Amino acid sequence: MSTTNAVKTILSHYEADNPGVKANLHRILMHGRLGGTGKLLILPVDQGFEHGPARSFAPNPPAYDPHYHYHLAIDAGLSAYAAPLGMLEAGADTFAGQIPTILKLNSANSWATSANQAVTGSVSDALRLGCAGVGFTIYPGADDFFAMVEQVRELREEAASVGIATVIWSYPRGGKLPKAGELALDVGAYAAHMAALIGAHIIKVKLPTDHIAQEEAKQAYAGHDWSRQSERVKHVVQACFAGRRIVVFSGGAAKGADAVFQDARDIRDGGGNGSIIGRNTFQRPRDEALAMLERIIRIYQGGE
Amino acid sequence: MSTTNAVKTILSHYEADNPGVKANLHRILMHGRLGGTGKLLILPVDQGFEHGPARSFAPNPPAYDPHYHYHLAIDAGLSAYAAPLGMLEAGADTFAGQIPTILKLNSANSWATSANQAVTGSVSDALRLGCAGVGFTIYPGADDFFAMVEQVRELREEAASVGIATVIWSYPRGGKLPKAGELALDVGAYAAHMAALIGAHIIKVKLPTDHIAQEEAKQAYAGHDWSRQSERVKHVVQACFAGRRIVVFSGGAAKGADAVFQDARDIRDGGGNGSIIGRNTFQRPRDEALAMLERIIRIYQGGE
Amino acid sequence: MSTTNAVKTILSHYEADNPGVKANLHRILMHGRLGGTGKLLILPVDQGFEHGPARSFAPNPPAYDPHYHYHLAIDAGLSAYAAPLGMLEAGADTFAGQIPTILKLNSANSWATSANQAVTGSVSDALRLGCAGVGFTIYPGADDFFAMVEQVRELREEAASVGIATVIWSYPRGGKLPKAGELALDVGAYAAHMAALIGAHIIKVKLPTDHIAQEEAKQAYAGHDWSRQSERVKHVVQACFAGRRIVVFSGGAAKGADAVFQDARDIRDGGGNGSIIGRNTFQRPRDEALAMLERIIRIYQGGE
Amino acid sequence: MSTTNAVKTILSHYEADNPGVKANLHRILMHGRLGGTGKLLILPVDQGFEHGPARSFAPNPPAYDPHYHYHLAIDAGLSAYAAPLGMLEAGADTFAGQIPTILKLNSANSWATSANQAVTGSVSDALRLGCAGVGFTIYPGADDFFAMVEQVRELREEAASVGIATVIWSYPRGGKLPKAGELALDVGAYAAHMAALIGAHIIKVKLPTDHIAQEEAKQAYAGHDWSRQSERVKHVVQACFAGRRIVVFSGGAAKGADAVFQDARDIRDGGGNGSIIGRNTFQRPRDEALAMLERIIRIYQGGE
Amino acid sequence: MSTTNAVKTILSHYEADNPGVKANLHRILMHGRLGGTGKLLILPVDQGFEHGPARSFAPNPPAYDPHYHYHLAIDAGLSAYAAPLGMLEAGADTFAGQIPTILKLNSANSWATSANQAVTGSVSDALRLGCAGVGFTIYPGADDFFAMVEQVRELREEAASVGIATVIWSYPRGGKLPKAGELALDVGAYAAHMAALIGAHIIKVKLPTDHIAQEEAKQAYAGHDWSRQSERVKHVVQACFAGRRIVVFSGGAAKGADAVFQDARDIRDGGGNGSIIGRNTFQRPRDEALAMLERIIRIYQGGE
Repeated sequence: MSTTNAVKTILSHYEADNPGVKANLHRILMHGRLGGTGKLLILPVDQGFEHGPARSFAPNPPAYDPHYHYHLAIDAGLSAYAAPLGMLEAGADTFAGQIPTILKLNSANSWATSANQAVTGSVSDALRLGCAGVGFTIYPGADDFFAMVEQVRELREEAASVGIATVIWSYPRGGKLPKAGELALDVGAYAAHMAALIGAHIIKVKLPTDHIAQEEAKQAYAGHDWSRQSERVKHVVQACFAGRRIVVFSGGAAKGADAVFQDARDIRDGGGNGSIIGRNTFQRPRDEALAMLERIIRIYQGGE
Repeated sequence: MSTTNAVKTILSHYEADNPGVKANLHRILMHGRLGGTGKLLILPVDQGFEHGPARSFAPNPPAYDPHYHYHLAIDAGLSAYAAPLGMLEAGADTFAGQIPTILKLNSANSWATSANQAVTGSVSDALRLGCAGVGFTIYPGADDFFAMVEQVRELREEAASVGIATVIWSYPRGGKLPKAGELALDVGAYAAHMAALIGAHIIKVKLPTDHIAQEEAKQAYAGHDWSRQSERVKHVVQACFAGRRIVVFSGGAAKGADAVFQDARDIRDGGGNGSIIGRNTFQRPRDEALAMLERIIRIYQGGE
Repeated sequence: MSTTNAVKTILSHYEADNPGVKANLHRILMHGRLGGTGKLLILPVDQGFEHGPARSFAPNPPAYDPHYHYHLAIDAGLSAYAAPLGMLEAGADTFAGQIPTILKLNSANSWATSANQAVTGSVSDALRLGCAGVGFTIYPGADDFFAMVEQVRELREEAASVGIATVIWSYPRGGKLPKAGELALDVGAYAAHMAALIGAHIIKVKLPTDHIAQEEAKQAYAGHDWSRQSERVKHVVQACFAGRRIVVFSGGAAKGADAVFQDARDIRDGGGNGSIIGRNTFQRPRDEALAMLERIIRIYQGGE
Repeated sequence: MSTTNAVKTILSHYEADNPGVKANLHRILMHGRLGGTGKLLILPVDQGFEHGPARSFAPNPPAYDPHYHYHLAIDAGLSAYAAPLGMLEAGADTFAGQIPTILKLNSANSWATSANQAVTGSVSDALRLGCAGVGFTIYPGADDFFAMVEQVRELREEAASVGIATVIWSYPRGGKLPKAGELALDVGAYAAHMAALIGAHIIKVKLPTDHIAQEEAKQAYAGHDWSRQSERVKHVVQACFAGRRIVVFSGGAAKGADAVFQDARDIRDGGGNGSIIGRNTFQRPRDEALAMLERIIRIYQGGE
Repeated sequence: MSTTNAVKTILSHYEADNPGVKANLHRILMHGRLGGTGKLLILPVDQGFEHGPARSFAPNPPAYDPHYHYHLAIDAGLSAYAAPLGMLEAGADTFAGQIPTILKLNSANSWATSANQAVTGSVSDALRLGCAGVGFTIYPGADDFFAMVEQVRELREEAASVGIATVIWSYPRGGKLPKAGELALDVGAYAAHMAALIGAHIIKVKLPTDHIAQEEAKQAYAGHDWSRQSERVKHVVQACFAGRRIVVFSGGAAKGADAVFQDARDIRDGGGNGSIIGRNTFQRPRDEALAMLERIIRIYQGGE
């Protein structure tokens, strides 16, 4: 397929990036069943790090095998597959070139005693594994936030210099931030904006609620009805340079299929670029997961 | 326009700097409607980092778009435009060469649990984006002040070695410094002096009050009437190597236009080199902002 | 002996590794009396660091001499010998080439006031001593876990780049982890999985009990009988990419020979790749140790 | 003037230093009105950093201008001028070659919340500004003393490798050291000795009192009359490798002229190499300061 | 003298070291009056750093002069002279080649507020000063022990790569270690063993008492009579790879000559390689010190 106008427009927003980074964004945007639409669907499998293998894979034991996830992402026609070093290495040769991959470069775990992550891979790893992108999580609000940002900044600069795109998972957490504020609209938009300021090419945030957590921000949100999820998505997109950056939303914990589909519709209607969806697919039996992904793809294509 | 005597005099004070740094100071001093006067007007847009996107841009929603600020600075005939990485990148190509840019290299945010900042860009970024300068905030008084200074020092040396000028935002904060002292005259002059000692080419401080915060400094300020703002500006200029360094003052939070104009008159009459003015312009409708900037420019040109 | 199918299959799982790393894994897998079987028996002698020389070697004083351990490992036909810098250096020339060696690159000690280790060797040391692998201990759960992971990651990348394999000892400890949880099944499988995600070529964990320590993990383990040790081994193997990584188990403190043999049978029956066995051999008289190792080898060969 | 025997003897003590460092010590020892006598008089202007600009320069406002200090040091015929980066840069070209300069490479300030300093310049800066030496402050006794020493050590090694001499200001402070002990004789001699051990070419300490602060040191000082200041100077000189290192003493806070002259006589009679004198000169009107410096020079030349 | 068998045997134990390191060990082992015997007598003068100049040198004032110690070590026919940077530099040229020197690369002081040391010299310093070895102190048990080990490890690797031998002073201290345990036999043997594991070429420990401090170690020491000092020395030697590493013992605080001689006999009879003896010599008048050293040499030669 030749490059679509939708993709050309998105790429035009990355005006300060070198052709290498743009080529990798192009790879992701033109790949899979949503290729050319300007929408994305990404499979992330870092839950083994975050929650342990059994909580992640026992609901669907074939998923213990790293090859399972490559197969799932390829067969479902997704845009990209994201995972930590070991998971990618275990299939990088078998599936070389079959789907764009994103090497997740930092990770936390269930026992962490601070809101932070360890760097678990390098840009060299991403190059030698043929990845289109690298990914990082930052925790706006955390005591270690400044250090996380500096770490991500250095690796992002190195990645961009060799033509690799950067995806930032921006998850407010820790420090003075109340638990209730982690999903607040103002907090989520702020988290997305900071990821954009740091230089993320693709921004990943959670779908926000209509709660406003910061006292000083209440006035800025007053006089607008935030009860519809699509409106909130629209605001997050606005916070990402008025739509000049790709923003995808996470599916969160495994939940009912209907809720998953409604999220996709709201993301689409609010102008978001797509979903990163992990547990909701790989914790279901493969056939069920493929059917769900097919339905989501159709929603992003404009269907119901 | 050929280089004016006012600019030649200013550049002569940077006697230890290489031609590259002087050329970039020259670019800023000769650009825009104040070009050649020795006065400066800079648009800074780092409030998205500091206060979040909604508090910064909701009052004037077109300002969510990074292109808006480039347009505003260019159309108003300002001397330079300063912003963090993502904001500059999103327009660096479209507006290449149309206005000198300053890459802000560190940033804080509303959730910070310590008085510090994260480095969010590099000198290489400044070079590849064609910036005339890089900018840093330091917090004199903060527990992390020594570390901030060492970070800035290293980056400033690197920047100067490739001909890029350094702007230091010197904002007293944290540690043993009482809140009331942050705007005190003695504290502000000290903060400006330290920025000069570290090697700032352009020093940015807040307009100080007539409060004297340090007990040991009271004697040095005794016997002089500090009630006029222009006298206080004059003292800050004196603290910056008796006028051998460019000093600009910040406009602070959005306020009435009259107060803004009075500040400009006082800065001018005290011998300051100009203003960095952000929220007071981009949070107003564009026409209103352009009119305000036009008036400030006329004040710096010697009008009322 | 030409490469066996068992070894070829194992090596095929390291699909993203370079020929140098594979050649060293091949050296270990094809060496000694278990060479070619896909099973391993490794002698580790780092107890002098961990517990001091007298607690380690007084039960069998000839073991104070570093040459003793080289002799023991070679004469017993083991797969590899692992030790810290000084221990390897003291025999590296005399026994050069006679057995694959693994340089343990970090170490703790009995007086440690935090759950961490010091780096005590380098990849250059491993190269100049002709080692096939390097080894690290990580403490999942420890407050310093992120820092340990980053240290290991860097050295692992450097080692792999020069063709040296990495063995990770993953021992849950410290932080929020209760003492009782250190040997729990869920915790051990999680620790093994993280070692795999970080990029370990060989994973070493302790044999887990049937305790489940994490409340959130209980559901994932419900409905299965974990009372048999071989079932638990099987789960750990599953957690290591469904068997795509070599997993060996430690013998723990010195204990009765029968318990040691039963452990070996369970490891074998659960699909584990072998044992790392230290104190249970070198703290016994040499003849007794050789007889015990011979019996373990026979168990891994399929005997009783 | 050809090199005097006094200077040749001093240089002979720096037997492990390269010709570049010796040439710079030679420059300082042969410069100004004390040139060739083996005595030194140095003007330091780092008080703007330490106490702020107004407390430093308001008593004599022309001193706000960095050129003032170059002029003062040159006109008084001093041996060298020492200041932080910004102060030197602001006159480095105008006065190039007219007086040896020492770039002060670290600095504290009045708001510091720990007994430490920030590095505020580099050896490259010293080279490009044509400095003969670099200077550092260390705080023996401070909690951060080890870190300060390591920082100074690295920069001192770098400086020496390019032929630049190192001056160490050794000021006991912080940690377990009682305020009363900061000027104690045993503490001052210890501080001077540590500077010598670290490799200082010129050691700067404060004139000590006859107090002995360390209980364990009392015996070593017993049986000697320490009431005369010249005796105490002699002991400090002894503590600096029995006179094999140049030792200069600071004038301290501004005080009466007679006290200043008596200090100079005691330093001379005790075998010290001279004074570093800042506030006592630049806070006086220029004529008064020049007269005072003239008198001190005559004292070091052997007069009264 | 041609290399003796005693020295050849010792060198053969350093089988993984390069010829450069062996040549420097050879220099030390073949130098002075004990040259060729396999025994060593080293003069260390780092007490100025550790205790201050007056406590170190006031008992014998000529010792304030760095040349004094070179003379003493050379005239007494010692094996080597060890001191920090400044002390060595002050005589390195005058005495070049006359005695092997060891540059002490880290140092503590009486005011230290943590059990740690500062690095005060570099391997480059050792090379340019013509040193045969570098020395480090580590504090097993200290909270900062891991950091100290990593620092020493890096410098040791760098030193060995350029043919310089490493001496490690292993002094248990700090953390959970009770004061009473610092000289305990189990603790001292453990400290010596860790120095060997880290890669020390020469290990320096204190003569241990017969106290056993670690509860877990008591069993390993049971059933043996540790009342004789020579038996304890023997155990420490055993803990250093069964005699494959050179072990020397410190003389400790100044004490009666008879105690010093008895220590030497016990070290010799227990198989230790000699003494490092500082305050017991340089705090005595030179003639007395020379007589004492002569007697110690005769003891190590087999006399009484």
